[in-house]
Amino acid sequence: MEVVKWTEGKIRILDQTRLPADEVYLDLSTYQEVGAAIKEMKVRGAPIIGIVAAYGLALGAFGLSTNRQQEFVDGVIDIARSLLATRPTAVNLFQAIERMTAVLHNGPDPELVRQALLEEARQIHKDEEDNTVIISNLGAELIEDGYTILTHCNAGALATSGDHGTALGAIKAAHLKGKQIKVFANETRPLLQGSRLTAWELLRAGIDTTLITDSMAGHFMSQSAIDCVVVGADRIAANGDVANKIGTYSLAVLARANRVPFYVAAPTTTIDMSTRSGKLIPIEYRSPDEVTLFHGVQTAPEDIKAANPAFDVTPNRYVTAIITEKGIARRPYRQSLSQLRPARPLSVEAQIEGGPRG
Amino acid sequence: MEVVKWTEGKIRILDQTRLPADEVYLDLSTYQEVGAAIKEMKVRGAPIIGIVAAYGLALGAFGLSTNRQQEFVDGVIDIARSLLATRPTAVNLFQAIERMTAVLHNGPDPELVRQALLEEARQIHKDEEDNTVIISNLGAELIEDGYTILTHCNAGALATSGDHGTALGAIKAAHLKGKQIKVFANETRPLLQGSRLTAWELLRAGIDTTLITDSMAGHFMSQSAIDCVVVGADRIAANGDVANKIGTYSLAVLARANRVPFYVAAPTTTIDMSTRSGKLIPIEYRSPDEVTLFHGVQTAPEDIKAANPAFDVTPNRYVTAIITEKGIARRPYRQSLSQLRPARPLSVEAQIEGGPRG
Repeated sequence: MEVVKWTEGKIRILDQTRLPADEVYLDLSTYQEVGAAIKEMKVRGAPIIGIVAAYGLALGAFGLSTNRQQEFVDGVIDIARSLLATRPTAVNLFQAIERMTAVLHNGPDPELVRQALLEEARQIHKDEEDNTVIISNLGAELIEDGYTILTHCNAGALATSGDHGTALGAIKAAHLKGKQIKVFANETRPLLQGSRLTAWELLRAGIDTTLITDSMAGHFMSQSAIDCVVVGADRIAANGDVANKIGTYSLAVLARANRVPFYVAAPTTTIDMSTRSGKLIPIEYRSPDEVTLFHGVQTAPEDIKAANPAFDVTPNRYVTAIITEKGIARRPYRQSLSQLRPARPLSVEAQIEGGPRG
Repeated sequence: MEVVKWTEGKIRILDQTRLPADEVYLDLSTYQEVGAAIKEMKVRGAPIIGIVAAYGLALGAFGLSTNRQQEFVDGVIDIARSLLATRPTAVNLFQAIERMTAVLHNGPDPELVRQALLEEARQIHKDEEDNTVIISNLGAELIEDGYTILTHCNAGALATSGDHGTALGAIKAAHLKGKQIKVFANETRPLLQGSRLTAWELLRAGIDTTLITDSMAGHFMSQSAIDCVVVGADRIAANGDVANKIGTYSLAVLARANRVPFYVAAPTTTIDMSTRSGKLIPIEYRSPDEVTLFHGVQTAPEDIKAANPAFDVTPNRYVTAIITEKGIARRPYRQSLSQLRPARPLSVEAQIEGGPRG
């Protein structure tokens, strides 16, 4: 399974909206198509959004016909702006575009810069895949033999590329080390990434998986059926507050009430040292149709209003540990996270609208 | 809207599995059809299950051709057993059948007993409707002008018959008293009673309603968007532990974490003084298909396991108050509930298999 691949000037992605019924690959040949695929969540998951956006910027640069330096740079910055505007919460998008636009200062020749942009995108892709291997092995150490692990949404290979993922990477690595584990997967309404994507990945990995609705997680925790919760993240603030798929905050509160450890697995590209606290993380609101329709079928009355925040913020006090490729951070997070990833000014983002607030 | 009606030897019910798309009424003409309608949740909600089962017992008694007393009584007890076996959690079913079978001792003539059974069913129906009026008015006092109320599943007229309901009755009564209120309705997976039934009832009542997925409730509480939670109940143990639709426990924990009052509205027929604590309440597990299929469409991988507990138990410490037709109970519940509803031996249930445990 290759979730994302650059090949012959196109970006091939696995269409995640079609899983598990159909394994359909899409070839994206313009940066606009890349932006649309991100917006429509044909590709989703914080790390892979960064990867695909990076390739999208390279694609856009190759599509610019000019070889005049300033015109080229202006064109790339416009493309960056367009890609940054696709989804507001996952910070990996901003981090990846920042790495990409830094390459613009490499030299005066647009053709060389185009090649350098593609190389940087490939490197971002490789870095994120490497990160998942380390995160998986570190995370597996926290999962004991006999554990039943609860997870939410999809923080697997589909969200990161590679074979592992972050939260699911830790679970798969524990399984590969021979630990007898079971997983409860939340279906993750409204878009069912848990039942469609996580269940699919864990079945392929041969892991004993039970699907539940999001509303059942607390019940199973109260029955002592869950030994730990492991989830991914879309943005982690400097103080350790975690933005992740809507429903994560509820799991964290329920885990605390039931003395269940609550782990977050994410690469350091998900940490945003420029955002002081989770209160400052922008939360994407998506179409109410995702709540009122189900596979195209209207399930609620026609005239009903619906709200659809795609993420929530879990305060750091509920987070037992954050597993990154540079080590496992624990409270106090302001200190432990800054040791993992020194703060630096987001210089390029600062000049581009749509960058992270705070 | 008449959710349930006895007419010419048949029980007419509104098929709740078809709402909100279609308003379809079903005529049930045998007790077996009544049992199936309860099992398949064509009629659902603790109080109305009791009402429909009572009518079903009367229907079954009219269907017994014998006029020999012992044969008749044995036949009615068999029908009672069959109806009691339909769903295990809501205690109103057991309370209603207990009231009905007590009528068997009224006299030796089966024909008179048949009439007495029908009268008792009508009285149970009337009592439950009367209960909702008082509960609605008492509950409305706890809802202040300007409140936004969160509710889960459907504890409306569809669950009780009449015009009110319990949790929704309190909300509707507050609205009718001129209080400016808003409601957030959880969709309530897996069967979407919130989006299909509660949204439908509240729209008809002209109340400002926003539909959310169950996983969003905690987020909105953390944003101070919710002033109180009001839900119904399927069985309340003597110590005030509350069994209700799966997901209720999670809401209660989240309400506590966010200092939001958590109210339960239910008639005293939902209180089971013979069950000492919530741990002893039997929890119905329903088909995994309700989790993996949606409107007949498979949303999860074919081979995935799923768990489907239909209810959970909220420990009494999370319950701010229980609103009944006999008054509002507060902690300590063992004392306050026993004052509302003195314990009495469930003599008839004790002789029938399938009665409440504990």
